[in-house]
Amino acid sequence: MALKTSDEYVERLQRMKPNVYAHGRKIGRDDPMLELPINTLRFTFDAVNDPDLKDLLITKSHLTGEKINRFTSLNLTIEDLYTQQEMKRKCCHRVGGCTQRCMATDTLNAIGVISKEIDEAKGTQYHNNFVEFVKYYQASDLVGSTSQTDVKGDRKARPSQQEDPDLYLHVVEKNSSGIVVRGAKNHITMGPYVDEHLVIPTRRMTEEESEWAVAFAIPADADGIKIISRVVAPRKRINLKAPYNDYGVSDSVVVFDNVFVPWERVFMCGEWEFAGQLALTFAGFHRHSYCGCKPAVTDIILGTAALVAEYSGVEKASHIMDELTELMIIGELVYASGIAAAAKAKKTASGIYTPKFIYSNTGRYLAGINIYHEYDILASIAGGLPSTLPAEEDWLNPEIGPDLEKYIKRKPGISAEKLHRLFRFISDYSCSAMGGWAQYVGVHGGGSPVMEKIGIRAEYDLESRKQIAKFLAGIEDD
Amino acid sequence: MALKTSDEYVERLQRMKPNVYAHGRKIGRDDPMLELPINTLRFTFDAVNDPDLKDLLITKSHLTGEKINRFTSLNLTIEDLYTQQEMKRKCCHRVGGCTQRCMATDTLNAIGVISKEIDEAKGTQYHNNFVEFVKYYQASDLVGSTSQTDVKGDRKARPSQQEDPDLYLHVVEKNSSGIVVRGAKNHITMGPYVDEHLVIPTRRMTEEESEWAVAFAIPADADGIKIISRVVAPRKRINLKAPYNDYGVSDSVVVFDNVFVPWERVFMCGEWEFAGQLALTFAGFHRHSYCGCKPAVTDIILGTAALVAEYSGVEKASHIMDELTELMIIGELVYASGIAAAAKAKKTASGIYTPKFIYSNTGRYLAGINIYHEYDILASIAGGLPSTLPAEEDWLNPEIGPDLEKYIKRKPGISAEKLHRLFRFISDYSCSAMGGWAQYVGVHGGGSPVMEKIGIRAEYDLESRKQIAKFLAGIEDD
Amino acid sequence: MALKTSDEYVERLQRMKPNVYAHGRKIGRDDPMLELPINTLRFTFDAVNDPDLKDLLITKSHLTGEKINRFTSLNLTIEDLYTQQEMKRKCCHRVGGCTQRCMATDTLNAIGVISKEIDEAKGTQYHNNFVEFVKYYQASDLVGSTSQTDVKGDRKARPSQQEDPDLYLHVVEKNSSGIVVRGAKNHITMGPYVDEHLVIPTRRMTEEESEWAVAFAIPADADGIKIISRVVAPRKRINLKAPYNDYGVSDSVVVFDNVFVPWERVFMCGEWEFAGQLALTFAGFHRHSYCGCKPAVTDIILGTAALVAEYSGVEKASHIMDELTELMIIGELVYASGIAAAAKAKKTASGIYTPKFIYSNTGRYLAGINIYHEYDILASIAGGLPSTLPAEEDWLNPEIGPDLEKYIKRKPGISAEKLHRLFRFISDYSCSAMGGWAQYVGVHGGGSPVMEKIGIRAEYDLESRKQIAKFLAGIEDD
Amino acid sequence: MALKTSDEYVERLQRMKPNVYAHGRKIGRDDPMLELPINTLRFTFDAVNDPDLKDLLITKSHLTGEKINRFTSLNLTIEDLYTQQEMKRKCCHRVGGCTQRCMATDTLNAIGVISKEIDEAKGTQYHNNFVEFVKYYQASDLVGSTSQTDVKGDRKARPSQQEDPDLYLHVVEKNSSGIVVRGAKNHITMGPYVDEHLVIPTRRMTEEESEWAVAFAIPADADGIKIISRVVAPRKRINLKAPYNDYGVSDSVVVFDNVFVPWERVFMCGEWEFAGQLALTFAGFHRHSYCGCKPAVTDIILGTAALVAEYSGVEKASHIMDELTELMIIGELVYASGIAAAAKAKKTASGIYTPKFIYSNTGRYLAGINIYHEYDILASIAGGLPSTLPAEEDWLNPEIGPDLEKYIKRKPGISAEKLHRLFRFISDYSCSAMGGWAQYVGVHGGGSPVMEKIGIRAEYDLESRKQIAKFLAGIEDD
Repeated sequence: MALKTSDEYVERLQRMKPNVYAHGRKIGRDDPMLELPINTLRFTFDAVNDPDLKDLLITKSHLTGEKINRFTSLNLTIEDLYTQQEMKRKCCHRVGGCTQRCMATDTLNAIGVISKEIDEAKGTQYHNNFVEFVKYYQASDLVGSTSQTDVKGDRKARPSQQEDPDLYLHVVEKNSSGIVVRGAKNHITMGPYVDEHLVIPTRRMTEEESEWAVAFAIPADADGIKIISRVVAPRKRINLKAPYNDYGVSDSVVVFDNVFVPWERVFMCGEWEFAGQLALTFAGFHRHSYCGCKPAVTDIILGTAALVAEYSGVEKASHIMDELTELMIIGELVYASGIAAAAKAKKTASGIYTPKFIYSNTGRYLAGINIYHEYDILASIAGGLPSTLPAEEDWLNPEIGPDLEKYIKRKPGISAEKLHRLFRFISDYSCSAMGGWAQYVGVHGGGSPVMEKIGIRAEYDLESRKQIAKFLAGIEDD
Repeated sequence: MALKTSDEYVERLQRMKPNVYAHGRKIGRDDPMLELPINTLRFTFDAVNDPDLKDLLITKSHLTGEKINRFTSLNLTIEDLYTQQEMKRKCCHRVGGCTQRCMATDTLNAIGVISKEIDEAKGTQYHNNFVEFVKYYQASDLVGSTSQTDVKGDRKARPSQQEDPDLYLHVVEKNSSGIVVRGAKNHITMGPYVDEHLVIPTRRMTEEESEWAVAFAIPADADGIKIISRVVAPRKRINLKAPYNDYGVSDSVVVFDNVFVPWERVFMCGEWEFAGQLALTFAGFHRHSYCGCKPAVTDIILGTAALVAEYSGVEKASHIMDELTELMIIGELVYASGIAAAAKAKKTASGIYTPKFIYSNTGRYLAGINIYHEYDILASIAGGLPSTLPAEEDWLNPEIGPDLEKYIKRKPGISAEKLHRLFRFISDYSCSAMGGWAQYVGVHGGGSPVMEKIGIRAEYDLESRKQIAKFLAGIEDD
Repeated sequence: MALKTSDEYVERLQRMKPNVYAHGRKIGRDDPMLELPINTLRFTFDAVNDPDLKDLLITKSHLTGEKINRFTSLNLTIEDLYTQQEMKRKCCHRVGGCTQRCMATDTLNAIGVISKEIDEAKGTQYHNNFVEFVKYYQASDLVGSTSQTDVKGDRKARPSQQEDPDLYLHVVEKNSSGIVVRGAKNHITMGPYVDEHLVIPTRRMTEEESEWAVAFAIPADADGIKIISRVVAPRKRINLKAPYNDYGVSDSVVVFDNVFVPWERVFMCGEWEFAGQLALTFAGFHRHSYCGCKPAVTDIILGTAALVAEYSGVEKASHIMDELTELMIIGELVYASGIAAAAKAKKTASGIYTPKFIYSNTGRYLAGINIYHEYDILASIAGGLPSTLPAEEDWLNPEIGPDLEKYIKRKPGISAEKLHRLFRFISDYSCSAMGGWAQYVGVHGGGSPVMEKIGIRAEYDLESRKQIAKFLAGIEDD
Repeated sequence: MALKTSDEYVERLQRMKPNVYAHGRKIGRDDPMLELPINTLRFTFDAVNDPDLKDLLITKSHLTGEKINRFTSLNLTIEDLYTQQEMKRKCCHRVGGCTQRCMATDTLNAIGVISKEIDEAKGTQYHNNFVEFVKYYQASDLVGSTSQTDVKGDRKARPSQQEDPDLYLHVVEKNSSGIVVRGAKNHITMGPYVDEHLVIPTRRMTEEESEWAVAFAIPADADGIKIISRVVAPRKRINLKAPYNDYGVSDSVVVFDNVFVPWERVFMCGEWEFAGQLALTFAGFHRHSYCGCKPAVTDIILGTAALVAEYSGVEKASHIMDELTELMIIGELVYASGIAAAAKAKKTASGIYTPKFIYSNTGRYLAGINIYHEYDILASIAGGLPSTLPAEEDWLNPEIGPDLEKYIKRKPGISAEKLHRLFRFISDYSCSAMGGWAQYVGVHGGGSPVMEKIGIRAEYDLESRKQIAKFLAGIEDD
């Protein structure tokens, strides 16, 4: 059966060769430091048994006919894209933010589209490689990273112009059995707890840069790979348990130090004309995913702000209602843009549907420029308490706990415990390292707003709009 | 044949009894003052012959099977809603803004939905009346107004609490052949050049207000109707002809002074529980229409700004590109919201699909809060010249015309005439009574942003978001 | 006596040689078309007799000791700058917008500062010329234009690189008695009704461009000058007289076709190093003026919006109060920035105080990016009526006037006439050619926001901020 | 000598009775947990010896003529207010944010103003009490808190309507030697390391609420006081020392459990008419202080963003320059508003100058609505690295440190160490609990934007603006 349990996933991780480093130590994948981040991925396995989620999560493989987890599936209809978006929104509600696993979903779909195009143009066999890999990926219910972002070195120089050619990952050797690559990928979410790294280019390449035009899949513990991780998780709770505090995340620098990749796992190697297209196709899918997950973040902020307003007895205050409505609008416009991207999706030669690029981008853009604003609204409505709330330990201290209980009371009928839980959640959510992480990922994950602007304007038919202006103004070109 | 020509339409108007007043005079419907506004409607008839537009404009009546103008059609599929949106965008490009005629399309669809609901709840015959009326409307290729907005008097008092009960239009008499109504409808676009006034309520009503819960269709020259109009049109041109300057608009106070309506043209009379629903259903359709037409306005502003940047040689300046991209995003997000409203539309008992209300609203909202901002971008990029450009007459004056030509030159290769045409267009478009009108309609037409906020929050499931917050925070309700 | 009456001013105009063109005709300065624009200037003369204004308007010449109009004065103390700002705000309240006359005040002050600097650097006599000119200007209570903005041609080419060297005004001949200039200045407010044109450079010049580095004063009817004007004024009223409708404006292209300027009226000729400084010093003064006049525009919009809210009975609605408060904040922040510019003003070698450049700029910038937003707030609060209100003629038509009176009623106790006056004012103010003009001038007058940004960043000590960051981060430079 | 050393300050703290609780324990004031927060206060003592700061920090007592620290001084001239603002800006640069100590400065000044007014109205002796207290405060170079914000309970109920009367601090007993108070003050910055708590009311009171109208000073370790603290500090560094990481903050709930205050330290007791005025006067001073310190926060963000742009080689990219300029404008407009508040300050009966309330508010408002936006700009320019940068320990790990050094390189010539220091600083500054704290305090400290809006509109002369509108529209009141 292609649906695996979260325990099976964790056991796989524990069988891997140790090549993870974090906070000063080389650690095993069973290190307690990774427990919360891995919990997030566990959720994506457990959710197939959740009555509210299973219809979204379980789908059928078009390759094998088996039931698979949608996180491992390809989007073969517009309906698939609608469902992806809804699944992401609903799952993010449960883990209090990013479920992380859609990275690979989007990368696989993008590789599927472009490997087919390369084959058609060049007579290569990449799409076969891809199909075989997807069968394996689905059958084992794997987790993959998106190892896309190079460290990039001097931002004004191209890959081939860097002082150190490794600043973009590149092919350093080819032979009959495979290729050898060197470089590092940055900001790689899930680094220590993926089965496979899915490696794709970060940008357009020129003919001189064909050695940097490379895409492949590689087991996460392959020789030569080092995963250097920063783990971020909410504050630990003592008695005041809360689901939010059970999930974490880790981002890594993944170093590829002369890593060998066999040909059957290579999806692009030297076809520089397709490097930018692969980068962009991934971006199109992933920004569409954001149109699902970012509304979930807004839902969380909105629900929290609404609850604190209710508990404080000010939920009918007009400026509060207005700010809550603003959140509704941000969330729903982002979601709407994702729906539009799906509704107007195009079927590619591979059979995979690609969401309409401009609407993936407008949705992600709107989310990106509003994330700090949403935290601002939450802080505004919550008041200062999330930043000054004494620690849980103090509440457990009998000398002062009763004072804290007495003085936190607000609207009659709302217990001190509820208020305590709510404000501690807001504090952990928005006034913490985890909150800072979420703000940054809200801006940059999947491409920052400035990237969406570039994407939008690059493909926009501005000329047709100028023609409209010329027509109305009575300007005739010679 | 159900498709009529624009001449046939104008002839119909000229056969009507004179009851139009404008700028101090009682005028015939052939008065030159109305030429430009009527041109806009003429366009909607002529467009069925336009190769670029006819596939959007011509559809088939589901009632008669005849070819009809889509402006007279009902939306019986999601595809119909997509096409409506696209048709509106493309038509607006041609007349430089609002085509006006979709008012009636949206009103008919809304009446279609609600008359069915009333009949099902009350055993009335309104939907039959409606179907018969639509057959007539389609067969004759009619133009209708949306006579919805009452003058409303004291904003803090309900209809039944006004000092003067006529401040909301109401039924003052019923008899076996029909009803008699009194009141006035305000801001009625196309007042002097519609065939029919389509009258619907402006708001929710209470049981005490059943006399104000009324909807019907009435010929525009029926006894007791006075149409008091303000005509707005672009400045006249002498030699420098431009399509933009050929179209205008007129809004009216339509006074109903004891007007008789026969029962077969009544679609609601006293069913106060449905008044709000009809108002809202119309709003849902019409705000969806705005998701088509407002992007066209953005297209015009965008194309114009891009052209002036090009002619000035600054089209690559980064702050210019950035502002143009912002326009792209505004336009496409509004359009995307309309697509989402259509994609998630619901089929009603009448067979008509209603666009998903929240997305009609988020799209219209975004358009509404940005219209002045878009004019700001145009003004910023155009520079001050649209506000200081000497009159066309001066360009024709041989003493100074050559000076004006000499000193308007910008980028080499762009003729003085092109520059003159472009800046005059911008001046007429954005620095004029017509521009002011467009700004106001951009805010208020179809419901101002504050109305969309109310609409959004009224139907939003905020409770489910609070539950998400409670779940994540570990708050359990008793 | 140096204070002249408005009649004396108008008589001066009428004695001038005709060289004004407008709307197709060559006109005298007594042409009715100019009546409303000239009224605005008349106000600045009459105001010296207004009990509420005279203490602001009358000051003493530091050159002659005579009472003079502050519009002709130099700023010799910080207090002078405070008073200038207050005078501008209060005067603008009376004419419903720009009083126009401060253009010259700011130009004179800027020439005063820079002519002194040139003399000190170069041993020239420009400051003497300036002092003599100011004595004459003050004694006669003159009105001057600021003829600064060149037509500029190709925006990517410098003055010396244009296909036509006249696209920036330049010196074409020098002889013992004076200089001859050719070119045209654009957007020149008050063109047809100034006594003198005050001509200054529009930008920095290089050594190759010394012929374009020129500043002087010249009577408005000097040989070779043509003034091509666009006149803008509010709609005419019939019975419903209102002060707002009594004032207008005119902007002109002023063509200098080989105009001779005697040496004693030249303030810069060839000292290219000072061209940019003169342009910038004027900008510094004039943007400070905007910190006085723009808050007055906000006051008008704010008061009008507050009044329409009151008359509609919604003045306590929270979203209304919020928008009104936003207007208060915009207006007062702009004003505060002007106060700061004055409080931190620097005394120059000439004795004139120059407001602190950065604060003149931040104030002007904030005003510039908000002007359309302010109109948006007004439109939002006013509702659609300003754009659809039937013409005054219709109110005078006995067939329909009573209908209009009946149906405009709002809050009990507010007469139909008051409502009519208010909505007609809003219509004329914001939904008209005059309103469009005000929006453009709100963006571009005195330099558009993008110019202020350039000005701010050009003189900002960014390095010191980087040092703060380095200090806190523990980064030591080698 | 009235200037004390930071060691003398710390010794005073260590002599106090232990009544501080933090993170689960009752701690001494010498607990290491408090080291970083206390460092911030130490800075304010040490700065009197700093050549760049001493002229700002040392002033003369008007009571004793002795040299004192300006943080203990009263503002007796407009120049004093200018200097306060500048001192705050420059000091904040050094500690990377809030210096905390100005709380007391502002509270003392406010008590000084209002105690005089009460005495004049009521014949009380509060101002004498105040003067004696200030002499002591200055002579000992003390540190005081502002214990203003009550916990407030049910937000819809007034102090006298709460279920528990202690939810606002109140007088529970009066006798010949003094008063006894009960309640708790919330969000009290510097709680564990002040000499004195300065207690003032949080809001307007009614006659029924005279027991809540109370102000006084009390030693921080007086009987009955418990200080429950949350300590926030930047992440600890190992080798990579940086000044930013040396400073912290602590906020507390300060519980007053039947605390006795002798009459000579009482400044208000029952004079309910002055409670609101005291709260507002403090707000006026403190929001003026924010006009000094918030621009320093902007300076830090601006300098940091500019530095990361420089090190990445993109400092000339137009969208970067634009965002940096936006930061300049925000910072300088806030500062300008503070200058205006000082320039237009009014002398009160006490001799103390109060900054003009509206400009204190507009400045603080602008800062408050922009703080999240500023962090957004920093995140946008910095890219994702601050959120994913591996820990310092990893850089020290010889297995992976060299990889991290290799792959962080950017612009040629910028060492890996500099990049590491900079990104670690940004990470600690903006992607951390400390950063979250700074965002919250940026919104709420000194009054959140919604409070400034209320303050502005409460004192705004809106009527005069309506009169301007009426005048221009020709509306005459009866």
